Amino acid sequence: MRSHYCGQLETSLVDQPVTLCGWVNKRRDLGGLIFIDMRDRTGLVQVVFDPDQSELFEQANSLRQEFCIKLTGVVRARPGSQVNTGMATGAIEVMADGLEILNRSAALPIDFNQHVSEEQRLRFRYLDLRRPNMNHNLQFRAKVTSAVRRFMDAAGFLDIETPMLTRATPEGARDYLVPSRTYKGKFFALPQSPQLFKQLLMMSGFDRYYQIVKCFRDEDLRADRQPEFTQIDIETSFMTADQVMAITEQMVQQLFVELMEVNLGEFPRMSWHEAMRRFGSDKPDLRNPLELIDVADLLTDVEFKVFAGPANDPKGRVAALKVPGKAEAISRKNIDEYTNFVGIYGAKGLAWMKVNDLAAGRDGIQSPVLKFIPDAALQGILERTDAASGDIIFFGADNGMVVAEALGALRLKVGQDFDLVEDAWRPLWVVDFPMFEGDDNGLAALHHPFTAPVGVTPEQLKANPTETLSNAYDMVLNGVEVGGGSVRIHDSKMQQTVFEILGIGPDEANEKFGFLLEALKYGTPPHAGLAFGLDRLVMLMVGASSIREVIAFPKTTTAACMLTDAPGFANAGALEELGVAVIAKSAEDDS
Amino acid sequence: MRSHYCGQLETSLVDQPVTLCGWVNKRRDLGGLIFIDMRDRTGLVQVVFDPDQSELFEQANSLRQEFCIKLTGVVRARPGSQVNTGMATGAIEVMADGLEILNRSAALPIDFNQHVSEEQRLRFRYLDLRRPNMNHNLQFRAKVTSAVRRFMDAAGFLDIETPMLTRATPEGARDYLVPSRTYKGKFFALPQSPQLFKQLLMMSGFDRYYQIVKCFRDEDLRADRQPEFTQIDIETSFMTADQVMAITEQMVQQLFVELMEVNLGEFPRMSWHEAMRRFGSDKPDLRNPLELIDVADLLTDVEFKVFAGPANDPKGRVAALKVPGKAEAISRKNIDEYTNFVGIYGAKGLAWMKVNDLAAGRDGIQSPVLKFIPDAALQGILERTDAASGDIIFFGADNGMVVAEALGALRLKVGQDFDLVEDAWRPLWVVDFPMFEGDDNGLAALHHPFTAPVGVTPEQLKANPTETLSNAYDMVLNGVEVGGGSVRIHDSKMQQTVFEILGIGPDEANEKFGFLLEALKYGTPPHAGLAFGLDRLVMLMVGASSIREVIAFPKTTTAACMLTDAPGFANAGALEELGVAVIAKSAEDDS
Repeated sequence: MRSHYCGQLETSLVDQPVTLCGWVNKRRDLGGLIFIDMRDRTGLVQVVFDPDQSELFEQANSLRQEFCIKLTGVVRARPGSQVNTGMATGAIEVMADGLEILNRSAALPIDFNQHVSEEQRLRFRYLDLRRPNMNHNLQFRAKVTSAVRRFMDAAGFLDIETPMLTRATPEGARDYLVPSRTYKGKFFALPQSPQLFKQLLMMSGFDRYYQIVKCFRDEDLRADRQPEFTQIDIETSFMTADQVMAITEQMVQQLFVELMEVNLGEFPRMSWHEAMRRFGSDKPDLRNPLELIDVADLLTDVEFKVFAGPANDPKGRVAALKVPGKAEAISRKNIDEYTNFVGIYGAKGLAWMKVNDLAAGRDGIQSPVLKFIPDAALQGILERTDAASGDIIFFGADNGMVVAEALGALRLKVGQDFDLVEDAWRPLWVVDFPMFEGDDNGLAALHHPFTAPVGVTPEQLKANPTETLSNAYDMVLNGVEVGGGSVRIHDSKMQQTVFEILGIGPDEANEKFGFLLEALKYGTPPHAGLAFGLDRLVMLMVGASSIREVIAFPKTTTAACMLTDAPGFANAGALEELGVAVIAKSAEDDS
Repeated sequence: MRSHYCGQLETSLVDQPVTLCGWVNKRRDLGGLIFIDMRDRTGLVQVVFDPDQSELFEQANSLRQEFCIKLTGVVRARPGSQVNTGMATGAIEVMADGLEILNRSAALPIDFNQHVSEEQRLRFRYLDLRRPNMNHNLQFRAKVTSAVRRFMDAAGFLDIETPMLTRATPEGARDYLVPSRTYKGKFFALPQSPQLFKQLLMMSGFDRYYQIVKCFRDEDLRADRQPEFTQIDIETSFMTADQVMAITEQMVQQLFVELMEVNLGEFPRMSWHEAMRRFGSDKPDLRNPLELIDVADLLTDVEFKVFAGPANDPKGRVAALKVPGKAEAISRKNIDEYTNFVGIYGAKGLAWMKVNDLAAGRDGIQSPVLKFIPDAALQGILERTDAASGDIIFFGADNGMVVAEALGALRLKVGQDFDLVEDAWRPLWVVDFPMFEGDDNGLAALHHPFTAPVGVTPEQLKANPTETLSNAYDMVLNGVEVGGGSVRIHDSKMQQTVFEILGIGPDEANEKFGFLLEALKYGTPPHAGLAFGLDRLVMLMVGASSIREVIAFPKTTTAACMLTDAPGFANAGALEELGVAVIAKSAEDDS
């Protein structure tokens, strides 16, 4: 129906007739003329109606915001004074000579020039998506998936679909379940990831697989989780961890060059232990210059139990977080807030120290805990943190995990509050993860139970599970884990050993993963893979604050669709056919 | 790990060292040497182990079928007498100089050289997929999706994801339901198609959308249905039916040129009425030369009620199906079988007539109904069917739908039985569908309730629903409906009128489709779309007999996964959290 998109019009088209289809973005009546900003997915263009064409002008006079129209006219240059440099098509306008109103619009139920609540935005999502930034986000997302596919296709990866209706397992507490009609009383589960299927595809010899695929997790939704999310899922045979990292790093580099004109450079690698030590996080945001500095060894002999306890406990940790030059800026009120903040992560308090005047010795230090710290320790701390006058130092002292989480979170918060975060792209690989986390009460896989250990036999792994590293790798970008993967176990005995260490006995292993253990018998190739969180990656690239901003029809944080009013009640007959009944309903005000 | 894939090796690489990774497809010991056919996803290559390299030879001696190996060696030309022209790499072989056994294989549980039941194939799908034809099917499928995406991207279509957890509607008897944990007692439904979401995307101004997307239908599975299947889903704004047909036709043409080197030519168009009249089907297989020929007007006055009844009934039909030259070949036994066959479609019998000798008049005709057919009618039938000696003519006489279905099915069966089907690609568009099917007891939408009628106002549609045509189009290829679509209703009043005609009152319409009716108010653009069945399209292209042959991990015809043993029992605690209980279980032997 159209000859051009609105956003395509430019001075080279001056004097040419054009036909446009789109929406009335805005109407202005000025100097006896009617001006329309006409919009389609490519942008805006100004259209002018002249009263000399009286019939057309009268028709144009009925136009209101969001009317859907087809317009013909001639492109003309705007006089110099009227050129709008803030608009891509601001050098030209279209002199209308024909108008067809394709559909009228009622007055919009929400005014996007005002603040609109997220609930309203989701309820009228089809209008919300008309807004340029949402339109851009989804167009950009389409460019990302297209570029990813082109890269993967060119690298010989095969796009293979895996099932959505998969096996429900008794331990899958966070699976979305789907009752089966043919097998009443039994359920499918929606996949949390295609992990086992992609491993099976490697066993089938497909060698290089990828899929951009929906995954599901029925969990309490945090700010940035969705019940359904999208993975760029990748698996390869006969490739080492280094090779998988190289090819996926190259993919992300290429994405950024192609779509953002950003050269990410080579991604540095950091061990999990170093990340936890220096940044208190397994996904450190390297744009933030603050670091955790261990000081336990300086405090083993102090009498102050809060420090001495963790300093002398092999599982304890005492660390300092120096914020340069902020001794004055960070007020008592800030400190109180930060004390509450680290409490969320289990810290029982937040010791601090302001270095008002380094040259003045003890007298130059202001700190509620100063009296507990002997000179030598104080000197040691100031030296190790390379403190200068005007700095403030926070301390965390507790078991290692609490210190890492509390100071790691504080590091990010202070960085944000005081604008310390560099405006840059800082990718890295985190590697050398422990195989397991937990203690004598039980171990859990840090990645998943199909991750291969590094350099051990099954016997060695069993003898020393907590000291063994896994062959896993996470890609982190600006503090967000955008991808994670590992070399997988391709040896049946090793897989059984890992199950055993995780407390999954042979019967349970067979019941849940029998098909995998069986499949491992028949010449399974060495294989490795990785999955990217597409929503997060796109969110970062467009600079959005939530993955909901890059998903066309997201659910709310309580897993509801405001637009279609899902979930809804089911047909009673259908439930009966499925052999299930509703035995508890949420209170109506919940829904 | 590899330098080449097996299937890439060719004479230009002679004398070059190569490293291969793959599987032992076959081992032969011959003349003191060990020969291995080594396989990867690209094909096979012959590897030779020489006993002179004793350590390597001994290692090679442990190789068994399906061992996964890494092999180094040098490419060499085979002596002329040993060239295997039946093998892509048959002109060369690899002289092994290094071998690493990456994984051993137990003896395979199934022998693919024997007949293997489909159940066994699905149970050991990871082995089944190693077979060259299954491997090829899925590689081909990946090529199809890649080519489709490249076409759609180049044509400015945006790949936008729509939700998998959608609104359950009380009438959605064939929806897969997903209980909600947050809203106990309520359910999501898995989408039967993204129809409404893609229409909403048009309302949002995305203009051109596509998605290759999983859809779900919980129905009694016929031979060629799967509970989850994949659509190439397309929607456009500001395009007419002709334009949608043109661009999607071009896409399929390009697919066939690119991947099959087949030029499909321009797709002819045929009205639904013509298709039903000439082929008794809304998806005629044009490779089959047989046609239905209406003869009711010749038989209105005969005394034989079987013919005269339908011939005089406005809803009746009498049609002939002539099979040229098969009077002798089609035996009484065949005819008995065909009589039973048409019974499946509701036909109460199958009249037939053999034209043994056209020149001999009545005496040359053999038919149990001959005595009921007067000379004039007989002459009329022979002329109209252009009968010749040696032809056999079948008759269908019943209401129009029974005749179409019965003779339409018989046409296909006879065509197959007597090898009348041309070896060719015969695409067409079926157009000009009726809006509704049904009778005074109620009307149903022939496509779906969002399909626009052709050339009527809401008032006119209401006055004459059954005579109105819809703006719908189906793409048919060799008798398979590969795609279907329509122009959608973009006018709120028209949409309400269609709901009304379908017996959906305003309250029900608001309850189910309120968000759509609401959205239609705000400048909805004219829009139209189409969805292809990807599984079927790929099935046709690779010449498979079932869509299960082009799906990596399909379900059985009873919607079970033999490999993972899904569906399975769910965790009791999880069910309780969902507020549902199992109230009926299938007998164990069902599962």
